[in-house]
Amino acid sequence: MIKNAKDFGFEIIAKDKKSKARAGKITTAHGIIETPSFVPVGTKASVRSLSPQDLKNLQVQIIFGNTYHLHLQPGEDTVKDFGGLAKFMNWDGPTITDSGGFQVFSLGKKTVKMIEDFEDDESEESLVKITEDGVEFRSHIDGSKHMFTPEISVEIQRKLGADLILAFDECAPHPSTYEYTKEAMDRTHNWAIRSLAASKLKQHHPWQQALYGIVQGGIYKDLREESAKFISKLNFDGMAIGGVSVGESKKEMVDVLNWTVPLLPEDKPRHLLGIGEVDDIFAAVENGIDTFDCVIPTRFGRYGIIFSGIPEGNIKTKFRIDIKKSIFAKDKGPLSRNCNCYVCKNFTRGYINHLFKAQELSAYRLASYHNVYFLINLVSKIREAIIDGNFQKMKQEWFV
Amino acid sequence: MIKNAKDFGFEIIAKDKKSKARAGKITTAHGIIETPSFVPVGTKASVRSLSPQDLKNLQVQIIFGNTYHLHLQPGEDTVKDFGGLAKFMNWDGPTITDSGGFQVFSLGKKTVKMIEDFEDDESEESLVKITEDGVEFRSHIDGSKHMFTPEISVEIQRKLGADLILAFDECAPHPSTYEYTKEAMDRTHNWAIRSLAASKLKQHHPWQQALYGIVQGGIYKDLREESAKFISKLNFDGMAIGGVSVGESKKEMVDVLNWTVPLLPEDKPRHLLGIGEVDDIFAAVENGIDTFDCVIPTRFGRYGIIFSGIPEGNIKTKFRIDIKKSIFAKDKGPLSRNCNCYVCKNFTRGYINHLFKAQELSAYRLASYHNVYFLINLVSKIREAIIDGNFQKMKQEWFV
Repeated sequence: MIKNAKDFGFEIIAKDKKSKARAGKITTAHGIIETPSFVPVGTKASVRSLSPQDLKNLQVQIIFGNTYHLHLQPGEDTVKDFGGLAKFMNWDGPTITDSGGFQVFSLGKKTVKMIEDFEDDESEESLVKITEDGVEFRSHIDGSKHMFTPEISVEIQRKLGADLILAFDECAPHPSTYEYTKEAMDRTHNWAIRSLAASKLKQHHPWQQALYGIVQGGIYKDLREESAKFISKLNFDGMAIGGVSVGESKKEMVDVLNWTVPLLPEDKPRHLLGIGEVDDIFAAVENGIDTFDCVIPTRFGRYGIIFSGIPEGNIKTKFRIDIKKSIFAKDKGPLSRNCNCYVCKNFTRGYINHLFKAQELSAYRLASYHNVYFLINLVSKIREAIIDGNFQKMKQEWFV
Repeated sequence: MIKNAKDFGFEIIAKDKKSKARAGKITTAHGIIETPSFVPVGTKASVRSLSPQDLKNLQVQIIFGNTYHLHLQPGEDTVKDFGGLAKFMNWDGPTITDSGGFQVFSLGKKTVKMIEDFEDDESEESLVKITEDGVEFRSHIDGSKHMFTPEISVEIQRKLGADLILAFDECAPHPSTYEYTKEAMDRTHNWAIRSLAASKLKQHHPWQQALYGIVQGGIYKDLREESAKFISKLNFDGMAIGGVSVGESKKEMVDVLNWTVPLLPEDKPRHLLGIGEVDDIFAAVENGIDTFDCVIPTRFGRYGIIFSGIPEGNIKTKFRIDIKKSIFAKDKGPLSRNCNCYVCKNFTRGYINHLFKAQELSAYRLASYHNVYFLINLVSKIREAIIDGNFQKMKQEWFV
């Protein structure tokens, strides 16, 4: 494995014959990402409840940070002062940050009622003001006013210093009308051009930051196709597909991948934003996606929802159990049979059921640890299967 | 180090010449405890936020579990079914449980207002009914009725299966009148005799459980002396001193130790219940205490209160900093200078300040980890100093 190679690069190592699935590797200044790869989310410079040492033990390759949150707390200047996101959290591998767009729209609206000392009685909608220039919004923490533009988002991400950064985009809510979705997509395209230009202006960090463009277009085929073509023509280092996690139907996600991926350049890595369930991961990989991030393993972990693979888990159970249920109170088996993680090798379902009932902090860590291991291990096996020509067989085993 | 020696034993290795401080070792079926030793508390079979692996890395020797909490959740039968407290939580070292008395009195009264569906309008006091036979109380979780007697407490502790167990006692609240304190002490003495008798009845576990008697008597010299003499005459394996953590004055604690310890048998180990601040630890050790338990390192950890030793910390700052304070937001130093723990070697004050502000679960774990390390390391150095004849010198260095 090449360490500290300064240049971003992507290489395809193997392809599945019956689908668009591919195995590859992304080179960054802070290490290699073997794809397909699941990217755990460390929203505020911490993958919730897990230490960087845990993440290394879990063979996590890259961590996802959220620009919106880090901008508000502790602020990009502080993160830069500590040597960038990775060094700030003592993670010595690659990192990726989003543009802040997604959270501005989702959190900006949802949390308005939590802000007490509002200076005027503007309606909920007016908290997020979208113009062609960018987005004005209020912090969900203290109500303070902030502005994101493509230039500001890139500048913040420069200071955060992740290896992979994303162009500023507008993720239209679901459902949105065709007209609004098109308007948001057109804005995203203009912002893509401006993000690219801003990324060329200066380099705050001694390593290269690869910029990914984002395909939007909602659930509308012609918009998705238009967006895929538009973003593909620009000189981005990688391609991201946004807005699939906000829909409700898994079929919509597959439709979007079917429409867009064939129009994306073959030789650039593709990131799918915000997915992490077992069936979604298989669907993403077989549709040619290389990396995907999701809060699911840690969020589920905190709720006591535990991933469980075949033969015990299956698509009917969504490959999950709820360890909080009383039926597990006397169960001496591991969280998931055939799992080799630290938690499954050392603790019983009964004990973890007890930790959840007792609201012990270790419950959240142990469950999160297992869930991250489960997804990292699953995707690592998918990668092996692609390389060995067994991806279709593996898929059949998981979805009998 | 002898492992799995089946017999309980205590040996004094070295004594300080100018105080009652002593270094020794306690042998249990599950390993050796080198004394003086700090005992972290794992109330509900989990040292809050730390895994057994963390505890091993921290060189913790023994863990303290609470009989009251474990009786209510998950219940002693479940714990027994999983192989006892240690095995249930996957801890392969020695454990100690208390008698349940302390929590019955403190939690039974405090939490009455949290119980909604009370069947009658008894006054708060009546929630805990003390008779010569024992104590009737209601669960702070669901209001259900329970009864603890010396026999029941020993029986529960048999099932929990710790290496060291405690006689059932009444810890009178602070302040209490002389009359009430004497009444509670007399009850404690009767219960001591009954606990001893009960402990001889049967063995649920294949290993020996050493039974400690508890000295009570509040802040009254003659009662403390009477209690020390009474408990010393009984055939307990070890001596515990209760009720010093409920007082408000540190001087009271030292008084109690001065009155009682000279009356305790020299050849039995002495446990002081519920202390863990730096000055209290020095005071306990120099007054001849061998082991002491406390929730302080983990509770402080969850509040962002960080132990910091000399030369940075001192008695005026109580050897603490509050890492949540804004002055630490840009501090690139470790939590505590000269500390060799995982947290101090890998994270900055600035980052941990951020984790607390962001309410990240890792904040609580990392701070707890450091605090437990700090106390374990401090007491280990105290032990070395006693053996090397440097205890007085060490004490001077810490309290200049």
